[in-house]
Amino acid sequence: MLKFYYAPKTCALAAHLALEHIGEPYEAIRLDFGSQAQRSAEYLSINPKGRVPALVTEEGILTETPALLLYLCQRSPQAGLAPLENIFATAKMQAVNSYLCATVHVAHAHRLRGIRWADDPVAIEAMKKKVPQSMGDAMALIENGMLEGPWVMGEQYTVADMYLFTIATWLEGDSVDLSKLPRVIAHRERMAKDPRVQRVLALYA
Amino acid sequence: MLKFYYAPKTCALAAHLALEHIGEPYEAIRLDFGSQAQRSAEYLSINPKGRVPALVTEEGILTETPALLLYLCQRSPQAGLAPLENIFATAKMQAVNSYLCATVHVAHAHRLRGIRWADDPVAIEAMKKKVPQSMGDAMALIENGMLEGPWVMGEQYTVADMYLFTIATWLEGDSVDLSKLPRVIAHRERMAKDPRVQRVLALYA
Repeated sequence: MLKFYYAPKTCALAAHLALEHIGEPYEAIRLDFGSQAQRSAEYLSINPKGRVPALVTEEGILTETPALLLYLCQRSPQAGLAPLENIFATAKMQAVNSYLCATVHVAHAHRLRGIRWADDPVAIEAMKKKVPQSMGDAMALIENGMLEGPWVMGEQYTVADMYLFTIATWLEGDSVDLSKLPRVIAHRERMAKDPRVQRVLALYA
Repeated sequence: MLKFYYAPKTCALAAHLALEHIGEPYEAIRLDFGSQAQRSAEYLSINPKGRVPALVTEEGILTETPALLLYLCQRSPQAGLAPLENIFATAKMQAVNSYLCATVHVAHAHRLRGIRWADDPVAIEAMKKKVPQSMGDAMALIENGMLEGPWVMGEQYTVADMYLFTIATWLEGDSVDLSKLPRVIAHRERMAKDPRVQRVLALYA
């Protein structure tokens, strides 16, 4: 059975939602970041990066949200969570996921994980200060372009919706001006009504 | 015909190498970052992010290196640049590409693009200062794990090799301790001997 490592308040939510949607049995294992469980020797043998998510499959271990999301779509094509029959549309979806991962999530990480990129406490504070703007700017490109509506990819509900939703749950914490993101917020509200989303989200509080 | 937008000293090199390898005709269009051509209204209509790479296809425009790399593999499966027949192996390759994009490239970007994440000049300097360590740590996980050898994915040469090569050309500029990365450097040297790599690399000086 698939084993999935996650922790509350992390981007693991996106792949967790995909697992819940495809309907294949899986075991979810919660890591306690408070006690630095992600840095234990046991977990580092699963994911040397000391991060979540990590997915243990019968063929080996996978990490990185954009890779996991596409893998789950390809593993369960009957779930219809990606436009796999069209390589251009799949690439567009992957481009959104890559942007969420490498630009939006990275902007957010400067609020709580600045130590990754500077040691000086003054710098850490300066990074925190810019997050509302850098996250707001990054999300504006989604609001005004990538989010086609009603779903990210238009009419088809895909894993990109789960990833966008995951990151959209961080916006208040990042002090982003929500009034500039009405479509993103409407998308978030629509997602939050799905019982499968509610079930998983309850684990992430 | 495919149109590809690039700029010297950028990660566009990775997808550019993939284009050169698949052998389909394409037009490469160089942007002059010195004159901020990536911020021109004309270019922003192609890529609202104001970044490279961007690939114009007959179906629309694609951005984001991990998405472009997989797209080119799927567009030209006969080139054999990804283990497409195996979804787990493809996911492993995409996980490497995602890590290069969201962790390694991001660590590097703190040397020259700190303004994305802080305004305070003291913070910008503090970010620069940590790059040798953060890039070194990020590359160590590749050296000691992800790079299976001789190629990233083992015996199969894939687009992940092109992406790793691209980022490995930045290591001296980032003052990374190369003595700790002998396998990455050997991989870089092997890549640099390929005439197709040399042809494209000449455009990136």
